[in-house]
Amino acid sequence: MTGRLTVLGLGPGDPRYLTADAVSALATAEVLYGYGPYLDRVPVRPNQDRCASDNRQEGVRATAALAAAGAGANVAIVSGGDPGVFAMAAAVCQEIENGPAEWRAIDLVVVPGITAMLAVAARVGAPLGHDFCALSLSDNLKPWALVERRLDAAAAAGFVIALYNPLSRARPWQLGAAFAHLRRTLPGSAPVVFGRAVGRPDEAIVVTTLAAADPAHADMATLVIVGSAETRLIRRHDGRAPLVYTPRSVERATP
Amino acid sequence: MTGRLTVLGLGPGDPRYLTADAVSALATAEVLYGYGPYLDRVPVRPNQDRCASDNRQEGVRATAALAAAGAGANVAIVSGGDPGVFAMAAAVCQEIENGPAEWRAIDLVVVPGITAMLAVAARVGAPLGHDFCALSLSDNLKPWALVERRLDAAAAAGFVIALYNPLSRARPWQLGAAFAHLRRTLPGSAPVVFGRAVGRPDEAIVVTTLAAADPAHADMATLVIVGSAETRLIRRHDGRAPLVYTPRSVERATP
Repeated sequence: MTGRLTVLGLGPGDPRYLTADAVSALATAEVLYGYGPYLDRVPVRPNQDRCASDNRQEGVRATAALAAAGAGANVAIVSGGDPGVFAMAAAVCQEIENGPAEWRAIDLVVVPGITAMLAVAARVGAPLGHDFCALSLSDNLKPWALVERRLDAAAAAGFVIALYNPLSRARPWQLGAAFAHLRRTLPGSAPVVFGRAVGRPDEAIVVTTLAAADPAHADMATLVIVGSAETRLIRRHDGRAPLVYTPRSVERATP
Repeated sequence: MTGRLTVLGLGPGDPRYLTADAVSALATAEVLYGYGPYLDRVPVRPNQDRCASDNRQEGVRATAALAAAGAGANVAIVSGGDPGVFAMAAAVCQEIENGPAEWRAIDLVVVPGITAMLAVAARVGAPLGHDFCALSLSDNLKPWALVERRLDAAAAAGFVIALYNPLSRARPWQLGAAFAHLRRTLPGSAPVVFGRAVGRPDEAIVVTTLAAADPAHADMATLVIVGSAETRLIRRHDGRAPLVYTPRSVERATP
């Protein structure tokens, strides 16, 4: 008897960003696994169990959920944002690859969600309107030298850059180092957007430039977008925040 | 009197990928603008007008919608996927920047959606589980030399690559040229995913390798994901499609 494991994304937090598919997966699961603060966003249901675990326990959480699904349960793992972007879907696949052969027979369903960069971009206009990349600044997961190499490559080639996991209490200097690195390649006028908790009561959006970007605007839950040399800032009247967008076309071959 | 312009994303097509916010925006707009096939996905409502326009008429569509909103209407522009990713939000921002000053006073709201790369990734596992980029192959919008430069930069730095607008009747050779280019840098064993129409009756997903990737699997509506040297393919039993994922961590600094 083999159950089902659904890995689903809650989006940035406000229920209005949930897809109908995610709502349905949350309603039908017998047991929910997840990082505590994400589970706290899901209303409690009778006859539905929940197993909260700590941040950075992704492998343990994936293994527990796979074992329950392997035993026949209908299980869901709850991720913030999109489960496939720096989140639980890759952890689950990794445990399937390394786990017992019968886990490959589990009915694995990944339900996409609104990842942070899409939510933050929507709040300010269209900074991801042309070629862009998404890069995690966590050097728990890769050497810092590789982060710097990817920042250089992306900036030099003219990609807009979305930075996930910009810093944390244990990684306080990484975002400042990334800005310093990018200033070597990008103009100081390149727009920078800090966005956190889109749609939640503690939402905070800051639009600035690379020259003025201050890592103090970011915490663990912040997504940072660094524009390219093409990205534009439109001032508005009446106290409206400026718009930030990257044009859909590029005229010249050398950014 | 200034109205509101909402630019919203329908996701990959099936209504189960719509967010509650998009459903609400569709219900309250007085008039919908969009590319005909996207509008056709939205149920007709009494007392709601709709203005369909052709593909590649983004500037004209944005201008018409801004003029209507500037005159006081509650207007929505309907995009496929996410409106901020190679879609209408950037076209609207560009027309605001270049249009009459009063357009800057329009209440512009961008409602994010599930963009194609997230939907396709979810169908096969977690190929976007670590650093990745999104690149349009349309050389209507930028010189082909710049496309090649960005492909080289992304592949050499170890980003997984999501290719939007891989080809069309008017651009038949670009995807093949991109594969040939990427084969210079990436191993032939790198997984490649072709995905189109996720959640729709004509959904088609193909998982292959860079060495074997055939552009004939793609059309205008296909999203292609090219894995990095880190991306893994897990074979499964019982006729299940293989899983594709990119591990969350990278051990070595040189991919």
